[in-house]
Amino acid sequence: MHVTRRLADFAVGQVAGDGALAMMRLSLADWAACGIAGAGEPVAGLLREMVLAEDGAGQAALFGGGRVPARGAALVNGAASHALDYDDTHFAHIGHPSVAVVPAALAVAEHVGADGAAFLKACLVGAELSIRVGVWLGRAHYQAGFHQTATAGAFGAAAAAGRILGLDAGQMAHALGLSATRAAGLKSQFGTMGKPYNAGIAAATGVEVAMLARAGFVSTPEGLEVAQGFGATHAGEADERAFDGLGQDWRFETVSHKFHACCHGTHAMLEALAGLDVAPEAVEAVELRTHPRWLTVCNLAEPRTGLEAKFSYRMTAAMALAGVDTGAMASFSDAVCLDPVLVGLRDRVTVVADESVAETAARVKVRVGQVLTAEHDLEAPMTLEDRERKLRAKGRALIGDRSQAVWDAVMNGPDIRGLTTQMG
Amino acid sequence: MHVTRRLADFAVGQVAGDGALAMMRLSLADWAACGIAGAGEPVAGLLREMVLAEDGAGQAALFGGGRVPARGAALVNGAASHALDYDDTHFAHIGHPSVAVVPAALAVAEHVGADGAAFLKACLVGAELSIRVGVWLGRAHYQAGFHQTATAGAFGAAAAAGRILGLDAGQMAHALGLSATRAAGLKSQFGTMGKPYNAGIAAATGVEVAMLARAGFVSTPEGLEVAQGFGATHAGEADERAFDGLGQDWRFETVSHKFHACCHGTHAMLEALAGLDVAPEAVEAVELRTHPRWLTVCNLAEPRTGLEAKFSYRMTAAMALAGVDTGAMASFSDAVCLDPVLVGLRDRVTVVADESVAETAARVKVRVGQVLTAEHDLEAPMTLEDRERKLRAKGRALIGDRSQAVWDAVMNGPDIRGLTTQMG
Repeated sequence: MHVTRRLADFAVGQVAGDGALAMMRLSLADWAACGIAGAGEPVAGLLREMVLAEDGAGQAALFGGGRVPARGAALVNGAASHALDYDDTHFAHIGHPSVAVVPAALAVAEHVGADGAAFLKACLVGAELSIRVGVWLGRAHYQAGFHQTATAGAFGAAAAAGRILGLDAGQMAHALGLSATRAAGLKSQFGTMGKPYNAGIAAATGVEVAMLARAGFVSTPEGLEVAQGFGATHAGEADERAFDGLGQDWRFETVSHKFHACCHGTHAMLEALAGLDVAPEAVEAVELRTHPRWLTVCNLAEPRTGLEAKFSYRMTAAMALAGVDTGAMASFSDAVCLDPVLVGLRDRVTVVADESVAETAARVKVRVGQVLTAEHDLEAPMTLEDRERKLRAKGRALIGDRSQAVWDAVMNGPDIRGLTTQMG
Repeated sequence: MHVTRRLADFAVGQVAGDGALAMMRLSLADWAACGIAGAGEPVAGLLREMVLAEDGAGQAALFGGGRVPARGAALVNGAASHALDYDDTHFAHIGHPSVAVVPAALAVAEHVGADGAAFLKACLVGAELSIRVGVWLGRAHYQAGFHQTATAGAFGAAAAAGRILGLDAGQMAHALGLSATRAAGLKSQFGTMGKPYNAGIAAATGVEVAMLARAGFVSTPEGLEVAQGFGATHAGEADERAFDGLGQDWRFETVSHKFHACCHGTHAMLEALAGLDVAPEAVEAVELRTHPRWLTVCNLAEPRTGLEAKFSYRMTAAMALAGVDTGAMASFSDAVCLDPVLVGLRDRVTVVADESVAETAARVKVRVGQVLTAEHDLEAPMTLEDRERKLRAKGRALIGDRSQAVWDAVMNGPDIRGLTTQMG
């Protein structure tokens, strides 16, 4: 199959998918909140200083303020929006679509003055393409050590940027072909600035190859699937079922958003607790049942730092029961680990490994005189309205009053200028 | 073994190696001539236009004129100097060291005002490190489809740029660690603009990661050898003998230079013919003996275009016998294939496959009344004086009168400003 050409046709084609576009709009608001909140992280600051010192044309806005050429903006904004690791995730390929794709699309949209609707469609097409390429590369690619956010993400970023630049299908194939020789990013950087940098690399690659393709650059237009192409050299599975329904079905509709600023393994438990209405002082005992795999991930019994608290069922449960906002980064402080009320609650929590609980689920029992029970599975469908409500709460927790202006800009158009005004 | 840290120590350490430095100086002159001649190629022009349009600070000179930020200059100059595929090659790993390393070193040296001697040492250290990393990655890496010029080259470029920026060993390890997540480049781009682009990518990566490391960026400082590091994810052999003698012995001393603007398979034959003194009109018959593997590579009997002529033993032999400069790109025109004198000579040439001839060698017999014989092996040692004479002739053939000024700038210091003045 002509993988790259099929993807190129999709990338420049008509987009009909209201549900997917509505989801992209929510992801865009979430992305902006993550980026504004992440702009203060050291990784974002270092990249921002580097590109600002290049003193180039103010083509596109940066999280944290300032304007630089589109390639540089994509690099900075990709890293800034992934710095907190709080952005959207797609589990089909295990990657973060928006942090690679949206910065590329936004920088180019600003540069050429694209309208909001075209920008939103380009984001969706790029995100979808990144997920499809990621599924085509498969678990083998991820398990070998490649960071799908960066690798599959670069193809999505190229598609989004190229679509906004008005590439034809042939030029788009060259852009994707160039991505095949430029895309990079390793999971062995996790735990360092290299992880968010990988998202920035993907976004910057997308802008660069799209610009070059528009100018007439010639690459191998079968760059993904050719002998010794990206798939073969990067442990790709090359399962072409990845492209079933491309253009009709939108895998992006099943993207996940994080609603708690702590380890993903605690989220099902936190959602289950959120369904109960208990006064913290009434809590006598709590039992949490979770799949055994999580016990080595996020079961620190007596965390001493904010970072450790993020990996503690007992402490995050205590915070949730006490009404502390687990969606706010600032809630995870060293001080919280010493709070006598929280420590008291924490010590009433027991964690039980239970093979019968799905990896994405949790069951809770809270004794407050009577025993209340609840369970939650992260894979459970969520209405757009519920998602919107949760994302708005997350936005407020992350960036306070600015979240309203971001929301309005995203829902209205999107209004690109309104959005970028909030980034600085 | 702590591969990345050992390389970092080498990259920031003392350099003692007069022979290697002398060779680097020759490669630098050759690199500049290739870049000046290559600046007119479409791939160079497209990249140059992209970075010039970003309108940034004039930190570093471009082949073809103009000044841009160092990252952009490295991208353009890497691609421009590799555009003609006429730059230096190291066969230990099969890569082109200078086109990745020198553009990174030069851009940063200009940016921070480094002196010529420091610049030259950085080029040598970077080139040596790229060869060592390339040998560590090994043939398996190359055969899997990775372009060593781009992959190993990125590490060399980072080392060269980082040395000029004054990184300490710890920062250098972070720069190399970031290269591990940023380095990329596939051989499946060969035959397209993607090949020279790969050299530019490596050079730009080197500048970027060195700048970030100096500013305090944190990566995985065992990026090459860690589990799922660059080696493991990129089909690397990880043979640590690659680092034997690092810092004492210089693999760069055995770098190869191209002296003819045609297929490398014809070069031994052309060198053998150059040892004979014959008048073209006296030539009655020519017999060329070469290893059979080359017959499918460069044995077009009756080439019709300049490009085909580059892959024709008979035509390149005719050109050499007639005194046409096979070191000049312009000699390989469509017209040359129709020239009656050359066609007459060509038709007196017979090519014989001979297993007893080494792959790097050729034997020639020319009948001019008497029979003259000569043979040449590209692996034969060459004195620095011979190499210098040949490279000066190549430089004149490539860029005419400017070659003298380039030569003077490189031999004197190097004089960085003198060199960059010739690039525009």
